[in-house]
Formats: sequence, structure tokens, C-alpha cells
Amino acid sequence: MQIDSAQLDTFAAVIDEGSFDAAARRLRITPSAVSQRIKALESRLGQVLIQRTKPTRSTEAGEALLRLARQVDLLEVEAIAAVKGKVEGLRLPVAVNADSLNGWFLPALLDVPPELVTAFDLRQEDQDHSAELLRNGTVLAAVTADPRPVQGCRVRALGKMRYLSITTPEFAERWLTGRPLAEALATAPMMAFNSKDKLQERLIRKVTRRRLDPPVHSIPASGPFVRAIRLGLGWGMIEEDAVEADLASGRLVEVAPGKHVDVPLYWQHWKLDSAVLDALTAAVLRAAAAGLRSP
Amino acid sequence: MQIDSAQLDTFAAVIDEGSFDAAARRLRITPSAVSQRIKALESRLGQVLIQRTKPTRSTEAGEALLRLARQVDLLEVEAIAAVKGKVEGLRLPVAVNADSLNGWFLPALLDVPPELVTAFDLRQEDQDHSAELLRNGTVLAAVTADPRPVQGCRVRALGKMRYLSITTPEFAERWLTGRPLAEALATAPMMAFNSKDKLQERLIRKVTRRRLDPPVHSIPASGPFVRAIRLGLGWGMIEEDAVEADLASGRLVEVAPGKHVDVPLYWQHWKLDSAVLDALTAAVLRAAAAGLRSP
Repeated sequence: MQIDSAQLDTFAAVIDEGSFDAAARRLRITPSAVSQRIKALESRLGQVLIQRTKPTRSTEAGEALLRLARQVDLLEVEAIAAVKGKVEGLRLPVAVNADSLNGWFLPALLDVPPELVTAFDLRQEDQDHSAELLRNGTVLAAVTADPRPVQGCRVRALGKMRYLSITTPEFAERWLTGRPLAEALATAPMMAFNSKDKLQERLIRKVTRRRLDPPVHSIPASGPFVRAIRLGLGWGMIEEDAVEADLASGRLVEVAPGKHVDVPLYWQHWKLDSAVLDALTAAVLRAAAAGLRSP
Repeated sequence: MQIDSAQLDTFAAVIDEGSFDAAARRLRITPSAVSQRIKALESRLGQVLIQRTKPTRSTEAGEALLRLARQVDLLEVEAIAAVKGKVEGLRLPVAVNADSLNGWFLPALLDVPPELVTAFDLRQEDQDHSAELLRNGTVLAAVTADPRPVQGCRVRALGKMRYLSITTPEFAERWLTGRPLAEALATAPMMAFNSKDKLQERLIRKVTRRRLDPPVHSIPASGPFVRAIRLGLGWGMIEEDAVEADLASGRLVEVAPGKHVDVPLYWQHWKLDSAVLDALTAAVLRAAAAGLRSP
């Protein structure tokens, strides 16, 4: 072994538990043993690996090692499962962006053979944070709108989510009718998921060729975001499948009919020879083929 | 004035923008002017107010001042609105726990007179983080399961959410029937919102008087959490209103019929003489009376 496995486990425990003392309790060793193992690992690699903050955090140099710890862990659990004929205690950590989690993603989990995995540990994250979680090994895969491969990961195109500009007929009547759209959109209350959600601005630029500064309601949860639009709080971009029936029946209307914003999605996963990761990737690709527009 | 308002605004800008340079750009002054104002404020109060990290953060001592800045800002906007007869650019930041946001809370926003507020800026937060956001003034009110008043805030009881233990008939048939419930729950896949979600454990202890260690799927979004249960991924605690119809029709069943877990909720808000805060509080109390069990 290039790296002492007890030292590696101890390093991961200090990050996971947030302190040297808590890691000592989990590993049932003394805090000074934890401290010695970390110092030995740091001097072996010539790098500081842990920021001694509260809670403790990995340094940038430590991130690759943290990912190594998770990867070795997964390979070990899978090897034991292969020997014993059944998997035990394997929880797969995966990051998923909010709209995918709320939409096409879930059926993929049901499609992974249960003999390969005990449970799933999903994180709802935007692309900025997903990249960090992949880098430090907190998640082994992510659905993200970011096509730039994270170091050590493989990227596959999943397809596109298409968003339409949606509101109620009453809201349209009150805020939009009887004047140019560019003027109406400058004052009509707009929805946003959070301050990073630029979908509505993209629609506005597409339609008006301008930047506008309307009042913005932020509702950072996919279900409530859609519900607030249905209640008439504002207009916003909603994934087409979620509004198809209501557009047909006239319960909802498009703010800019025929205009849309497409968001391509990607599956980023560790490059690792793991049966469960292969099965999850295949299941996610199938769910994406069923639930997304082709890339 | 006890505190120079330009210094106070500059302090809030440095925290909001994340750096001295970005604050300077927003305030259209030089970075050295920003630095001088902060130094003057810190020496006036004899406390370090800003952690010079990336991004900059308020120190504990600075939190009260940050809240003061937000409060003065709100009072100023309201006073200007009273003079001009209309409100401009007033976005109300409010923290709401996930299940409330997904459930009874939204109608309250529609019930605040629109002449008092421009838009709402919701944060979805658990109680730990809500307390911090109230303390440092990032939000002016919060729906939380924590009854302990945050310093400078008033607490009102809103009512209780009642959670039932829910799964599909197929899942119950496969995992639960034909053996004692305590034994079945030790192996049947369980859902959790995240690692802080103890609702399922509370139900297990109530029913079995024991702690069990079943496989746990984490899905940190209210809508997808419920949908995963409907798809048969695991059993979990769902708010009673969301499953009433499906329990009646037999599409869903209770894991432990007749057993429930109640979560009392509270409205914590700044003690401040603000028309919009009063109106929001009244609207939230009405929505809670309509959507929650009485306290």
C-alpha cells in the first residue's frame, strides 16, 4: 500500500465528524492517536490536509485524498458483497439539481438492482456546489447543468429540460395585457428559485433584447415555486412536462407563447470500476431518455 | 445618531457582497474609503466586526449590528413609502422550514396587502440555521420548530403538523406483513429528509420502544420525498393533509395505523414597529389557523 489505510480512514473520520475528538469516539481510539495518525499522513505527503477549524475541513490538497478514501470504501464494500453474495451498508451519495429531483430523476433509483445497493443518500445541490462535492468525494455522481468535467470524473450528456414562461390567466390579464410585453415585464412580479436562478432573465432577454429589473419573489423549492405561480404570485419558468395539461385546458397560460429556455443536463461520475456505479449510470441514462428532450 | 449611518451601510455591504472591493463597487466609493469606514466603526465600538475571510463574514459581535442595519433599512423604506404613498424595492426575507413551505405557508404571502411589500425572499431552512439568520438579521421572521426565542425576537405558537407513517400497499405486503412490526421495521427501507430528520425514528420508538437501524434513503426535498414513497422506495412520515385522500382510497396505507408524530411550529419575528411585519404576522397566523392543527 502506498498509503496506510488506518491513517486514511482516520483522515476521513476527522472530516466527516467535524473534529479530532469526535473522530476518536467513532474510531474508538484516543484523540492523541487520531492526532498522531493525521500528523504522520501529513508528513508522509508533505501537505497540510486538514484545516483546524470548527468544524474541521479538508484543505484543497486533502480533497483528492478524501475522495480516495470514499472510493476505496466503495470498492471494499463491493468486494465484500461479491464474496458474501449480499451487499451490506452501502449508501450511495448522489447530488441532483432541484428540478431534476422534482422531475424525471426519481424513477432511476427504483431501476438500480436492489442487490447492489442498500440505500441512496441524495443531496439537492446547484452546479457550483456539486462540483466541489464531486472533487472531495462527498458524492460519487451528480446531475448538473455544468458540462465542465470535474477532475477524475466522466461526463455524459443526459438531455435538455425545456422551460416555458408560465402564469395564470388572471395574472396575465392584470399585468400583461394591453401593453407591449417589454413594458409589462418590467413591472410584473417575477418568480425566481433563488438569486442564482437566471432562467427568467434569459427569457426576458430572448423576448425583449433588454435587461429588466422587475420585483422578484424568491421561493427556493421546486414544488412551492410552481404552486406560487399557480396561486398568482408571479410569473416564472416551469419545466414543460409539469404544465402541459394545464396549458391545454387554459388553467395556465404562457407569458411569451412559443418562446422557451433549454437547460442541458449532464451526469458526472467518478471514473471507477464499480458495479453499482455502472448500474446507477445505466438507470440514470434510461430515466433521462424517458424524461428529457434528447441532447 | 449613535452610529454613523454611512459606516453602518458600508458594514452591511461588505457582508452582503462578500468582500471590501465588491462593497466599494456597490457603494461607488473607493476600497480604501470602505476600509476606513469599517476601521472607524470597529474602533468606535471597540470590537472586530468582520472576519476577513473569503467571503467576508460577520463576527459574533457584528451580528447585532448587521441586524440593526437591516432593521433601520426596513424602517426607512417604510417611512419613505408612507411619505410617497407607495412602497418601492421592499423585499421581505423570511425563513420557512421545508414542510411548511410545501404545505400551509404559501397562501399567507397572497394575503399580505400588496401596497406594503414589493416581493418576498423566502429561504428554506431548518431550525438550526433559522436561528442564526434571525440573529444576524438576514431574515426578519421565520417559521421554525424551535420554540426558544432568538434574542430580540418574539415567538408565537402557530399550531402542529401531524405526520403519519405512510407507504404503498405493495411495500407493506413485501416488507411488513406476516411478522411483528418491530422486526419488520428493522429491515424495511426507511425514508428520511436528511440526517437531521428524526421523525421516522420517533415513530419507531413510539411503536417499538426501541431504536432500530434500518436502511435509510435520504431525499432532501418535500415533494420528491413524498413521491419516492408513492413509488415504493421506502416508508416515511408524511403530513396528514397530503395523504388523506390516498389513505381513504387505499392507494397508500399506514405502517402503524393510529400512531402519529406531532411537530409544533412557531413564528419568530423581530420585535419592530413595522406595518409590513405586522401584516405578514397576521397573514401567517391566519394561514396557520387554516392549515395546521391548533397548538
